[in-house]
Amino acid sequence: MNRLFHLPLSPFSRKIRIVLGEKKVSGVDLVEERPWERRMDFLLLSPAGQVPVLQLNGTTLSDSTAIFEYLEETIPEPRLLPRDPAQRAEARRLAAWFDIKFQREVTENLLQERVNKKLMKSGYPDGARIRAGSANIKYHLDYMGWLLERRHWLAGEALTIADISAAAHLSCLDYINDVDWGRNAAVKDWYARIKSRPSFRPLLNDTVPGFTVPSHYANLDF
Amino acid sequence: MNRLFHLPLSPFSRKIRIVLGEKKVSGVDLVEERPWERRMDFLLLSPAGQVPVLQLNGTTLSDSTAIFEYLEETIPEPRLLPRDPAQRAEARRLAAWFDIKFQREVTENLLQERVNKKLMKSGYPDGARIRAGSANIKYHLDYMGWLLERRHWLAGEALTIADISAAAHLSCLDYINDVDWGRNAAVKDWYARIKSRPSFRPLLNDTVPGFTVPSHYANLDF
Repeated sequence: MNRLFHLPLSPFSRKIRIVLGEKKVSGVDLVEERPWERRMDFLLLSPAGQVPVLQLNGTTLSDSTAIFEYLEETIPEPRLLPRDPAQRAEARRLAAWFDIKFQREVTENLLQERVNKKLMKSGYPDGARIRAGSANIKYHLDYMGWLLERRHWLAGEALTIADISAAAHLSCLDYINDVDWGRNAAVKDWYARIKSRPSFRPLLNDTVPGFTVPSHYANLDF
Repeated sequence: MNRLFHLPLSPFSRKIRIVLGEKKVSGVDLVEERPWERRMDFLLLSPAGQVPVLQLNGTTLSDSTAIFEYLEETIPEPRLLPRDPAQRAEARRLAAWFDIKFQREVTENLLQERVNKKLMKSGYPDGARIRAGSANIKYHLDYMGWLLERRHWLAGEALTIADISAAAHLSCLDYINDVDWGRNAAVKDWYARIKSRPSFRPLLNDTVPGFTVPSHYANLDF
């Protein structure tokens, strides 16, 4: 049985769902897993105790970057990394930018405080962290805008894992209305293009009880 | 000119130095860069403001994972990832384990507090973080021991980027005497094997002013 253990508002889970959609891998059941419950059967699959975990044709994979590279190697088309090694490095650099730097400076401050603490019943949001996340996202949107004024997609002229990683984070933050789409027209245009992809649409139908999505969230025209 | 912008006690810089050594890339000048000084010429090379940055044959690369994958693709021998996709995923999962999870739970708590704060003149070590790092490293050494009692190297029967990433972190922590080599015999044996590799020896000769290395640090027999 093919399964993806995921969380609806985990950017790393969303990244893999989009990759599976782009590569037209069907028949993967989504299983919601709350890693903080530390379910023993899940920890045996994922020693790091994190989502996503993908079980595909008998192979169990964890760490979203390792999962992505596996899918790119075993299902090469459509390519989500360019052919040229230096351009591949650029796509990987930017994917890591969102998975590590943006995650730390923005996503953790906003999503962890506003959503995960409530789901985990682990206290009230920390206002200082929310303010830090809200301040930091501006610099990241500006950097994305700078790139997108020079390139059609974040890492060059084709959609790559960099766009998917960035959009996975932004879509989670958009769910809690933490993205100022008015800040940069090139970023808004880029996100509209991502949002309209068939691989992306299912994510926008996810709901998390207790959190109301803003009206623009699933709209292609936002 | 081929250059690696690095810091002597940055695990990510050490990882790339070992990879360059394993792949016998010579003629790369080491340039020490203190990212916290935010030198403009450096930020133009590395928008994330982090070491390592590699300039090789006219290409500028940043993010240690992107740099590694570039080197693996352009200089395939000797391989630092297995051929089989599932085994490649295992090596990448473990490399990410050290680069993200170990970095956050151990390296940052110990190295940041004991070394970087002193170099950056940004205050005194935070005892709570040092205690957290010292407690966390035990679980990681135990997990490495569990793997190494079943496999010759961390990700399987051959040396991979997982070993290099792990050894890069541990060597920085060993410099400040924060690794209990008595905890697990399999881990100690593994580290002795890594230490004896020609790619690893140059790292052990680095010194950082103001920090005295423990007597066993550069010894192959420790």
